[in-house]
Amino acid sequence: MNFDQERLEKQMAFIREIDKEKQIFRQSYVTDGTRKENDAEHAWHMAIMTFLLSEYANEEIDVLKTIRMILIHDIVEIDAGDTYAYDDSAKATQHEREERAANRLFGMLPEDQAKDLRALWDEFEAGETKEARFARTMDNVQPLLLNDATGGKAWEEHDVPLSKIMKRNERTAKGSETLWEYSRDNLIKKNVAEGHIIPDMDL
Amino acid sequence: MNFDQERLEKQMAFIREIDKEKQIFRQSYVTDGTRKENDAEHAWHMAIMTFLLSEYANEEIDVLKTIRMILIHDIVEIDAGDTYAYDDSAKATQHEREERAANRLFGMLPEDQAKDLRALWDEFEAGETKEARFARTMDNVQPLLLNDATGGKAWEEHDVPLSKIMKRNERTAKGSETLWEYSRDNLIKKNVAEGHIIPDMDL
Repeated sequence: MNFDQERLEKQMAFIREIDKEKQIFRQSYVTDGTRKENDAEHAWHMAIMTFLLSEYANEEIDVLKTIRMILIHDIVEIDAGDTYAYDDSAKATQHEREERAANRLFGMLPEDQAKDLRALWDEFEAGETKEARFARTMDNVQPLLLNDATGGKAWEEHDVPLSKIMKRNERTAKGSETLWEYSRDNLIKKNVAEGHIIPDMDL
Repeated sequence: MNFDQERLEKQMAFIREIDKEKQIFRQSYVTDGTRKENDAEHAWHMAIMTFLLSEYANEEIDVLKTIRMILIHDIVEIDAGDTYAYDDSAKATQHEREERAANRLFGMLPEDQAKDLRALWDEFEAGETKEARFARTMDNVQPLLLNDATGGKAWEEHDVPLSKIMKRNERTAKGSETLWEYSRDNLIKKNVAEGHIIPDMDL
């Protein structure tokens, strides 16, 4: 068979390397509450959400592009680690750590694919296009679902106040007003009422 | 905001239910060998492989369709459990268990999406279309990569002979001759040579 062995070796090396994402754990618990979720599981869940919920996007999105973006959006955490959304000191160095990681990890691929994935990741980070906005909506709604399913377990562990959740979600409506409205009314308000979120502001 | 609350509730209930796939463990170990891989991680890994490796498909594939198929292909295991490829008694009842699971799980969705996902899963199972053939190639190559990365850990634990690996992979070339040739020469032969696979036949 005639193929470019060097190209395929680079692709396979990258595919093997990103297996490490399965060992990067987030703060959210899986729905049975027995353990925290890892980045690979989180991306899988978001990708399925994307094609089931794309009908609620504010603007019609390219579903394949959005899913590709979502599948690779946390790969940099293999080197940079997960930065908890409510950890301010870790967030200060996050950008620099993730840039270095993106250079190394996407740089393992053949040049055309390295550029393509890097551009997708940059687009997700910037959050300006309709696909990036929807991907970020998924990235915010998915942990709200898990937190609600576990009785606010991660919120309670970190004493997260409502104001921080609202700040994190200040752009959730940019991808889908419907999904933000649903999440606010059915996930956030409910958990404030149940005492799982500290009510430091009005909603 | 104007939306069909009942429809969205069904979608959210399904999204929450499939979180359980993160607790269905396979026989393959993640690349650092510390623990087995679960179905959600496996599907995430295969989905990324699909867009990176689609250039090697025997026929040009619809990448979005293939990725959607891959993301949901193991959801039935939430009810039916993982059936190890080399466990003949479990394989005998696999089809009936998985049919019941598909009815219950996909049936949680609004009717249009239930039909769509059920059709995608049936297509994967039948393995006749070019997308299903490529998806099954991914489903076979991904554990070969993990087994190779862990020094054949799962193969050694189950004393898997070469003949069973070749039987499981008898259709791997149907999705991609290139990826099958690569896998045979770089993953399987190497692990036979290193003593991680029982050499009960010639290759």
